[in-house]
Amino acid sequence: MGKRVALLLSGCGVMDGAEIQEATYALLALDNAGAEVACCAPNINQTEVVNHFTGEKTGETRNILAEAARIARGKIIDLAKVKAADYNAIIVPGGYGAAKNLGSYAFDGVKLSINPEVQRVLREFHAGDKPIGTICISPVIVARAFQGTSVKPTLTIGNDAGTAKDIEALGAEHVTCGVKDCVVDKANKIVSTPAYMYHTTPSQVFAGIEKLVKAVLELA
Amino acid sequence: MGKRVALLLSGCGVMDGAEIQEATYALLALDNAGAEVACCAPNINQTEVVNHFTGEKTGETRNILAEAARIARGKIIDLAKVKAADYNAIIVPGGYGAAKNLGSYAFDGVKLSINPEVQRVLREFHAGDKPIGTICISPVIVARAFQGTSVKPTLTIGNDAGTAKDIEALGAEHVTCGVKDCVVDKANKIVSTPAYMYHTTPSQVFAGIEKLVKAVLELA
Repeated sequence: MGKRVALLLSGCGVMDGAEIQEATYALLALDNAGAEVACCAPNINQTEVVNHFTGEKTGETRNILAEAARIARGKIIDLAKVKAADYNAIIVPGGYGAAKNLGSYAFDGVKLSINPEVQRVLREFHAGDKPIGTICISPVIVARAFQGTSVKPTLTIGNDAGTAKDIEALGAEHVTCGVKDCVVDKANKIVSTPAYMYHTTPSQVFAGIEKLVKAVLELA
Repeated sequence: MGKRVALLLSGCGVMDGAEIQEATYALLALDNAGAEVACCAPNINQTEVVNHFTGEKTGETRNILAEAARIARGKIIDLAKVKAADYNAIIVPGGYGAAKNLGSYAFDGVKLSINPEVQRVLREFHAGDKPIGTICISPVIVARAFQGTSVKPTLTIGNDAGTAKDIEALGAEHVTCGVKDCVVDKANKIVSTPAYMYHTTPSQVFAGIEKLVKAVLELA
């Protein structure tokens, strides 16, 4: 039996949900490495819905779990039912869904709130000495989850100076990192890779995510 | 400059749109091979919207192009503007979107209708001696596009006897094929791979799609 990994999704689509390529490339890298994956997502509505062709808000209501289920081909569980005890690791792809649905970074910057279940689950994995993988913009949510605690993660969001500064304002340390690489915080078992924080291509994103998955599974 | 490939999407999500993993794994394999990709989709509404968590129809209205734009990260063009002259090849992922939105196979079986723009584009590529790659259930649409013409493609949808029979009823030849392989009809420059026609995993699907992409680019 392979290691069991929870993949925390935040919808389906870069502008209002999980970044689809980051999520599916994580699924591919995890399957290549022999891991078993359980997708999960909060069972609440998205903060907004964006037409990805026009870039405009549509005013529709969509449920995060139901949309994330598109990436997971229907096999997905409510985040509220996820217990760290049942898994060896958790990975969080990026996309604006991380910054709009898992926490409110896209709207509130460093004063962001975080979804209580997201915070609970991330803290549970850390408390259980189980690794957390975090992709693209989701390191902001990881930093927020441990803000005000004794845990001071080392993270990367690539080379974006403004977001890096916000990561540090939240109490974490930021390290610059290329798209094909990842940053491994061995002490905290937190691994991050920038992916589509760069204007880049699928093969570059996959290279970074593959490296992150390898590091996460080694720590698990 | 790499070869230019059009990727024809039918929405975003296996139950009512393009199969997301098949689409993103095609993007990855094409980028790995140095091809340039232009995503495209019909600018019309989906025939239905399915909640991928419950499996139930929702009664919502969603536009195929706007939903497919989620997979394409916003970079997508209206299928009506796609001319075969501008590309070296076209690839069509599967998902029920192929069988519900590109044609009506999911509702009408072998009596399916086909979206006129889909038929026009597929015939243009063939007439221009440019390869067509077709994944999962979309070979049914390719067979329908050439029904009643002198073009008799050889295709695979894996090993599903009922669908294979329907492919043959539409005038094409069906060949059984494993998930990690593809069928190459050299005379017609049509390449097919079964992908999620099997109950399988991301790494197996990627292996088949990678092989299909290689064959398509060699024929282009």
